[in-house]
Amino acid sequence: MTRSVAIIGGGVIGAGWAARFLLNGWEVRVFDPEPGAAARVEAVIDRARRALPGLGDVALPAEGRLRFCSLMSEAVSDAEWIQESVPERLELKQTLYQKLQEHADPAAVLASSTSGFTPSELQLASNNPGQIIVAHPFHPVYLLPLVEVVHSARNHPDMLENAHDVLTDLGMFPLRVRGELPAHIADRLLEAVWREALWLIKDGVATTQDVDEAIRMGFGLRWAQMGLFESYRIAGGPGGMAHFLKQFGPALHWPWSKLTNVPRLDDELIAQIAEQSDDQSGDFSLDQLEDQRDRNLVGILRSLMAEGSGAGKVLRKRDVARAADLGLPRRLADVADPTRPIVTVSRAVPLDWLDYNGHMTESRYLDAFGHATDAIMAIIGCDADYIATGGSFFTVETHIRHLDEARAGAPLRIESRLLAGDGKRMQLWHEMYSGDRLLATGEHLQLHVSLDSRRVCPAAAPVAAAMRTLAKAQADLPRPEGAGRAVGDPR
Amino acid sequence: MTRSVAIIGGGVIGAGWAARFLLNGWEVRVFDPEPGAAARVEAVIDRARRALPGLGDVALPAEGRLRFCSLMSEAVSDAEWIQESVPERLELKQTLYQKLQEHADPAAVLASSTSGFTPSELQLASNNPGQIIVAHPFHPVYLLPLVEVVHSARNHPDMLENAHDVLTDLGMFPLRVRGELPAHIADRLLEAVWREALWLIKDGVATTQDVDEAIRMGFGLRWAQMGLFESYRIAGGPGGMAHFLKQFGPALHWPWSKLTNVPRLDDELIAQIAEQSDDQSGDFSLDQLEDQRDRNLVGILRSLMAEGSGAGKVLRKRDVARAADLGLPRRLADVADPTRPIVTVSRAVPLDWLDYNGHMTESRYLDAFGHATDAIMAIIGCDADYIATGGSFFTVETHIRHLDEARAGAPLRIESRLLAGDGKRMQLWHEMYSGDRLLATGEHLQLHVSLDSRRVCPAAAPVAAAMRTLAKAQADLPRPEGAGRAVGDPR
Repeated sequence: MTRSVAIIGGGVIGAGWAARFLLNGWEVRVFDPEPGAAARVEAVIDRARRALPGLGDVALPAEGRLRFCSLMSEAVSDAEWIQESVPERLELKQTLYQKLQEHADPAAVLASSTSGFTPSELQLASNNPGQIIVAHPFHPVYLLPLVEVVHSARNHPDMLENAHDVLTDLGMFPLRVRGELPAHIADRLLEAVWREALWLIKDGVATTQDVDEAIRMGFGLRWAQMGLFESYRIAGGPGGMAHFLKQFGPALHWPWSKLTNVPRLDDELIAQIAEQSDDQSGDFSLDQLEDQRDRNLVGILRSLMAEGSGAGKVLRKRDVARAADLGLPRRLADVADPTRPIVTVSRAVPLDWLDYNGHMTESRYLDAFGHATDAIMAIIGCDADYIATGGSFFTVETHIRHLDEARAGAPLRIESRLLAGDGKRMQLWHEMYSGDRLLATGEHLQLHVSLDSRRVCPAAAPVAAAMRTLAKAQADLPRPEGAGRAVGDPR
Repeated sequence: MTRSVAIIGGGVIGAGWAARFLLNGWEVRVFDPEPGAAARVEAVIDRARRALPGLGDVALPAEGRLRFCSLMSEAVSDAEWIQESVPERLELKQTLYQKLQEHADPAAVLASSTSGFTPSELQLASNNPGQIIVAHPFHPVYLLPLVEVVHSARNHPDMLENAHDVLTDLGMFPLRVRGELPAHIADRLLEAVWREALWLIKDGVATTQDVDEAIRMGFGLRWAQMGLFESYRIAGGPGGMAHFLKQFGPALHWPWSKLTNVPRLDDELIAQIAEQSDDQSGDFSLDQLEDQRDRNLVGILRSLMAEGSGAGKVLRKRDVARAADLGLPRRLADVADPTRPIVTVSRAVPLDWLDYNGHMTESRYLDAFGHATDAIMAIIGCDADYIATGGSFFTVETHIRHLDEARAGAPLRIESRLLAGDGKRMQLWHEMYSGDRLLATGEHLQLHVSLDSRRVCPAAAPVAAAMRTLAKAQADLPRPEGAGRAVGDPR
């Protein structure tokens, strides 16, 4: 049976909720009388369609149906969940709930996206306060898992459990907040940083960019994967959290920040934190936590490098400088001896290339060969500038022999040559080594295409000429052992 | 010429510095008279050897030489850079610098890892104050790029530029702090969060785990890639930063946090922030920033999913539930009709699988086929439990035909069958579809191995039996078109 949700308020938060429900198969009914609301919601959903379905490794349910309702009653009737995301004015919300509840199923969950108000405040003017909770999400709602769920004594435990299940089923992480307080948990932390950041700007010590770099080049990377306390637990070394607190506790009394109403870090509070930290992370040794952290950080940093964003931009710049230091050729003129195989890749195996067998996973052999192919493309003049003019090469066929294993940190070197190249079609041969060990060979057929028509077409004259020059220079190399193999051919 | 660095203090920060310099080709001389210091430094360097060299896509220089020095003079003489990471006591550092400077090259950079003190304080007792700066890194130093560089009026601009170049060359991001203030920038922000978090624990509203989840499931993911202001700029929508400030500014006067000494957000401060934010992000439209953010978030979330850590654990759990909903078989008994190809993968193309040609990149075809192979392995009983007993399959040969393209969000389905399976050796055939379009075929040869000896050996009896059963059931399927091809064979 199709489940349906009423989205009350189609701003950026409401639209994010609409996308998350819709792409998880719910019927979504949006009520927002603002002109242009439908177009704004559709734009967010379009964005979410590119990002959310591919987030996991398993397909989501078929997309639900989206309706824009001109009457609130139409949106709300039969809805199993009602998500309110209207502006942050308490009276507005209270009045709205009275109207909503006239038409709503009394058993539906009425959840507010409020970042500031408590359930008790929201429930105050309602005849059915037990159906009202806070479900506070984070922007962009269709990607970030966190949703803070806050309740009062008026909410029945069964209803809260149901709410928890619905949110989990949407791929979210419902964090059950243990008490009612203004701004719940996350926004209190954000507010603390925000206030300190405003002081830094106001005092002229930092710009907005300085603050952002100070976050995303450092502790932001830690916090994406472990948070505050677990990171500090590791920093405490073998002594753990209690050691960390004793070492860094005194800083609380330094005049570091302008936010000076500090709690007393007495023995009781230290014991409380150390005990909670043991509950949280005590199942893992320091060594295991450090392993986890390093794998996470390498994965995050490398994903940012693929985008050339934030810390990934730093890594990319460094790679460009290193490639130049190593003399890795990126133009035909840089190739010292074109009659020999060309070293196209020199790198080490990243931590995030390993699989459950403890070695470099099969697809990363092709990933590395793909880098080698990119280098050959650049050498014959099919670089980023050329691709921007609308021509490129697509790989149409690949054969890999996985001959040996590689572990994290092991050096990799790829030597590449052209088996054929006629201006439209090129056949590449890559050999991957770690030191003297041959790890794999790759044989690849590339066709030149127009990126407009997506069809095969001849390369521009200089690229075709360079391809032929290189193919001719390498034509006298002996045919490599293993070329022309089909899978399973006898050795 | 080999460059050399003196590491003064071999705690967790000093050891992180040692690793970063060493793996970037520097000669590293460590001075730390504490017993056991050498072993602790070596342990950090071993950890770094797995993580740092593979972080970028280009090899680092050959590792430098590591020496532990029993005399400070031995560590310091000839060093181009001296990095001090001793405990945070001002007088200790000042006295130490006097000794260091007796032996140091007066042109060397003497950088302190201090998180609290200013350069002016550190320089106070020195005869050569101009060589002393702050270079404050973040744990783990060998992975996180941020280093806050702080100077006083006593430091020469040329020396600061040199320091900047050295740190950049180490793959770091030197953030030049515009003024001297206690705790520089990042630690002031951290301290603000820390103080608020302590209140939450003390008041019993949240546990350490609640605080960590509130961070890493939500804004921690934003901060890993954009930071505070750029994230808020996006949240402000088309109105940008000024709109955001007007909308959320009033919250500063709410009693949200206990850190209540708040700056006045007057027109002047609003204008200052909006202008700085324009300088920082104004070259990009809102749409571009949102695209960037979504690609970053998907990349980060998927890298965490690969590790099953933090938000990635949530995604994994969701995938398990979805795979069950879809009826994707994970045991032979679940396969409805073993005489037909088996649907092993049903998913959408993730945003981070695209390349510069705007479509799914070649290695991700093999990545998806790898998931299909994993599913077949599970179906014949080679699942995580079996692998834990020391048996597994390694892919030794792969042939892919890339027949059509796929864009972000496109649905993918893989149908898989056994071409052969004799208990030790199995030959797989995968077909990848998007709707009715055949995107690619994959042919793979897998051998059963012992994970101890890393050599081929027969699979355990139940696995061998299941493999034979499945191969026999599928033996009557017609041989697929394209099987047995070598690269470049005529169609």
